[in-house]
Parts: sequence; structure tokens; C-alpha cells
Amino acid sequence: MTNFELFNYISGELNQVEEQLLNNIHSDLPVLESASAHLVKAGGKRLRPAFALLSAKLFSDSVQDVIPLATALELIHMATLVHDDVIDNSSLRRGQETVKSGWGNRMSIYAGNFVFANALLLVESYHRSDIVDVLADTSMRICEGEIQQMVSCYDTQQGLKDYLRRIERKTALLIAVSCQLGAMAMNAAPREITALKRYGYYLGMAFQVTDDILDFTASEEVLGKPVGSDIRQGVITLPSIYAIKFDQRGQKLKTLLSSPDSCRQRAEEIIDIIVQSDGIAYAYQVTNKYADLAIRQLQLLPDVPVRKALADLACFISGRDY
Amino acid sequence: MTNFELFNYISGELNQVEEQLLNNIHSDLPVLESASAHLVKAGGKRLRPAFALLSAKLFSDSVQDVIPLATALELIHMATLVHDDVIDNSSLRRGQETVKSGWGNRMSIYAGNFVFANALLLVESYHRSDIVDVLADTSMRICEGEIQQMVSCYDTQQGLKDYLRRIERKTALLIAVSCQLGAMAMNAAPREITALKRYGYYLGMAFQVTDDILDFTASEEVLGKPVGSDIRQGVITLPSIYAIKFDQRGQKLKTLLSSPDSCRQRAEEIIDIIVQSDGIAYAYQVTNKYADLAIRQLQLLPDVPVRKALADLACFISGRDY
Repeated sequence: MTNFELFNYISGELNQVEEQLLNNIHSDLPVLESASAHLVKAGGKRLRPAFALLSAKLFSDSVQDVIPLATALELIHMATLVHDDVIDNSSLRRGQETVKSGWGNRMSIYAGNFVFANALLLVESYHRSDIVDVLADTSMRICEGEIQQMVSCYDTQQGLKDYLRRIERKTALLIAVSCQLGAMAMNAAPREITALKRYGYYLGMAFQVTDDILDFTASEEVLGKPVGSDIRQGVITLPSIYAIKFDQRGQKLKTLLSSPDSCRQRAEEIIDIIVQSDGIAYAYQVTNKYADLAIRQLQLLPDVPVRKALADLACFISGRDY
Repeated sequence: MTNFELFNYISGELNQVEEQLLNNIHSDLPVLESASAHLVKAGGKRLRPAFALLSAKLFSDSVQDVIPLATALELIHMATLVHDDVIDNSSLRRGQETVKSGWGNRMSIYAGNFVFANALLLVESYHRSDIVDVLADTSMRICEGEIQQMVSCYDTQQGLKDYLRRIERKTALLIAVSCQLGAMAMNAAPREITALKRYGYYLGMAFQVTDDILDFTASEEVLGKPVGSDIRQGVITLPSIYAIKFDQRGQKLKTLLSSPDSCRQRAEEIIDIIVQSDGIAYAYQVTNKYADLAIRQLQLLPDVPVRKALADLACFISGRDY
């Protein structure tokens, strides 16, 4: 299975989500509509809708009812992305300009809020307070994760636990919730809902650790952004944490990573140290562990073809042969 | 009635709201908690909670059930304020720095999102999808209003309609919804809910027009911000729109208001022209008209002492003797 063949199970539904994304950002204000449409058209893997739909498919072939929910999950994800794009005064002062859109900071905020409010309206159409509850709680915790990421930049004291907690909120939570809500919308049994939530959580963790590895090892073409962009921004991920602690050049690495200037100017040197350490191999072990945990959850779920596909996906994400 | 004596009806409940505001922004992240607490402690008139509570008081003396809702309404208002504080690249480039907080742009966004998500959780505790629905829809429209305000800066072509539509979304909507939801939480009859929503809408319009007048006429002490701060930021309000159209110096005013530089450097000259025109008197007529409309809605509501107080408030806001 390459390139998410898994998505074939739900390609029709994903096309509908794509249509619904555009339908649900309508505004009478042309500038708002075009900014929001730009967000939608910027693409993305639509992972969160896919997880909601695949989870639902475990319980029935007909998952039409999950389309609005799947759309809402992607809108929420998009809202967080556009807010993450806003530049800070301080980073601007250092001469960095990372916002790609031509709309500026304030428009990015309002477009994010607008998209989020539209997601809320979509979810509200289910008249299910359990679903709204899960999403409100998740939004709050994602927000905490974004702040954790912000305040932990250049912090070379952070350990494995800090890192895991941060990526949990940054990535794993919304994927867990996507799986959970897909099952809830199909009125699955509580133990099945919990199993899917955990599957999504572990898979989300594996996914983010892999993503953080790729920032060191993949080519710019594969990533769609410069190699080492985490390092350049002072974002310290698992391979760095491992290398600081266990590599013989750990102390030097620690010094380099704690300064914004050296992170930017000596990024390649930093990347070399990490790639030559055992940090990457260790991070792969972690993704493997999470993938195993994800797969184990699937035993509690209906034995239909999608279940096998979900297991394959966990293997794919952790980079294993299967 | 000076200084909102009206609030005496609900002083106990407002104290509870004050406590709840702080209780509902708890986070394990100290930086997030302190930024959010700073927002709460910055104060404000707590108008939106007051309107929800007063509306509820029309139907029963015991309005305990409305406390979480009233708290949520203020949290939503605070979230929009902190997002409005974020500076744009462009305004920074022009050398303006308007963000007062010491936390920077990104923290302001995340704190706003966090506070909003907490409001959502509070509202969700009612398990009333009609209430969540109203709030989701309102958030979307408030957002549109903020963008309208942003794109209409320095736009001297805008007319009365543009202005009214903008302040409707900026201010009147959330006040209307505060009144509406106060009644909904008390399970008032549909016609009573509608009457209160309209009362809040008209009162909110009167309130914002008055606020826009005060930006020209009040002292810095009363305002808590520099006189003419709208003009300096290129925000064109009713007195300006009137003066551009009808004053003999209208054309000159138009030229001055259409340039960010002259708005900043020649603000006092601009203010003089507007204050000497009939724009202020015209704006007072408009607030009076809205206050009348607000008062008229009250006829459909229970004849209890709070009703008289709500009528007094409308007079107070429109600056009339009564």
C-alpha cells in the first residue's frame, strides 16, 4: 500500500467532503470568502475527514451521515493552521516573515475564527451535545498544545515527556477525536468508540513522530518545505532531545539549539549532528511502539476489510514493511 | 439613574459571574492562565452578562441558572477583544504598535481561542442545541463584522448603510443575543424571546453610535483612551460620514480621511471639522431613534420593575433626560 491506497475505500465520500468544504465557507464579504477559499484550495491530505469516514465504515458501508462531521473536522484543522501562520512581533523584528498569505495577520485571525464558527454550525446540525462537548474540549486542549510548542522553542531542557505531551495536543488529539466522532456518529458501542479514539491517538502520535523525523531526513520535494525547518525555528523534536542527552556532541548541540541565531545560521551543522546520532533510529522505535499500540486497539472492532486497512495504515505511517 | 444603577438588580449575580470568569480559564500552562487572567482582570462593564441576567429577571427573581451563560457571553466578548488587539504586519511597518499585552501576537490568538473554547464548554453544559446554534451563528457574523471594520478603514465612500451594518455585527449582535439567550434559558415564550432579542439589537445599535460620538466629544479620562482614536486609526463612523456628505468642508474632510498619514498627523484638524459640523447632532438623532425602537419592544414583556429599568437604560444610553 503506497500513497494511502486506503483512501480508495472512501474516495467518493472524500470528494463530497471537498465540495462541502467550499460550500461551508460562504460569506457576503468577498475578501473573507476568497481568504477562506484559498485555505481550502491549499489542499492537504484531508487526514481527519478520512479517519472519521474510515472509522464510520467499520460499522456500515453507508456513511453519508458522517460527511458534515468530516467536513467540520477539516475546517477545525484549517482554522488552527491559519492561526499558526500568524507572525509574532518579535519574530518580525528578527526579520523573519513566515506568513505566506497576502492577507496579513488580522485577516488570518478572522478567517480562522470564521472557519471555526462554520465548523461549529455544521457540527451543531447533528443536535448531539456529546459531539459538541468533545469538540469544545478538544479545541481548548489543542490551543494549550500550540502554546506549549511556542514556549518550548529553544528550550533544550525539555525531556521526552514534554515532547510527547506537546505532540499529543498538537496532532494526536484531533486525529483521536476524528476516529471517536466517526464512531459516535454511527452510534457504535461505547467500547468500540473508546477503541477507535485510542487507535486514533496512538496513530496520531506515530504520525507526528514520523513527521518530525522526516524534517531531518526527507528531501525538500517530499516535504514541500525546506529540510530542517523545525530546527531553524527552534522547534526541538524527539531526535534532538535524544541526541542532546546521549550523543557525545550533546553538550555542543544543546548550546547551538538554545540560541535563535545559531538555529538559523548553523542549521546544517545542527542537522548533521542529529542525523549522525542515534536520535533518528530511536525516534523510529517510538513510532513503531505507537503503531503497535494502535493496531492492538483494532482487535476490539468489527472484523471487516476496513479494519485490515486501518492496521496497514499504522504500519505504513511507522515506516514498516508488512 | 447614573452609572448603571440598574445593575443593582443583579449585583449579586454579577459578582458570581466575576468569580466564574476566573474559574473558567484555568489551565495547567502558567503562561496561558496568566494571559487569560490578565484579560479577565482588565475589567470592562460586563454589559453582556448584565443584559442576559436582566432579561432573565423579567421572568423570575431567581436567575441562578443563567450565571454560566452570562459568564460565557463575557468570555466570548473577551476573546474577540484580544483578537482585535493583534497587530498586522502592515500596521507594524508603519511604526504603530497597538498591542498592549506583553505576550505578543501569537499568544493573543491562542489566549482568545482558549477563552472562546472555554465559553463553548460552559454553554454546552446546558445541553441545549438551540443555544449553541445561536452562538455559533453569532460568532460567524461577529467575525464578518470585524473584517468589515478592517476593510472599511480610510474608505470615505462608505455610506450610512455600510456603517450600520458594520456596527450591527461589531456590537449590536452580541448584545441582542445576550438578551435573547437570557430569555431562552428561562424558557420564555417565543414572542418574548424575539422582543428581547430586538430590544438588545436596538439598544446595542444606540450604544455603539453613542460610543462613536463619545470618541469625538468625551475627555480622555472618561474614555480611558485618547480622544479621536477612531480617526487616528482610519475608522470612519457616523459623524464623519454625515460631515463628508453634508458639511461645506466635506470634500476636504474626505481627502484627509482617506490617507493613513493625514489621519494620524492631522487628527485634531479632522476632529475639529467634524465637531463643528452637524454630524454629532445627527448621530444623536440616530441613537434616539434606536432607543425608541428598543423601548417599544418592551411592551411585549412582563410588566415588572426590571422592565422599567430596561427602558431607563435605553434613555440613559441615548443621552436623554427621563
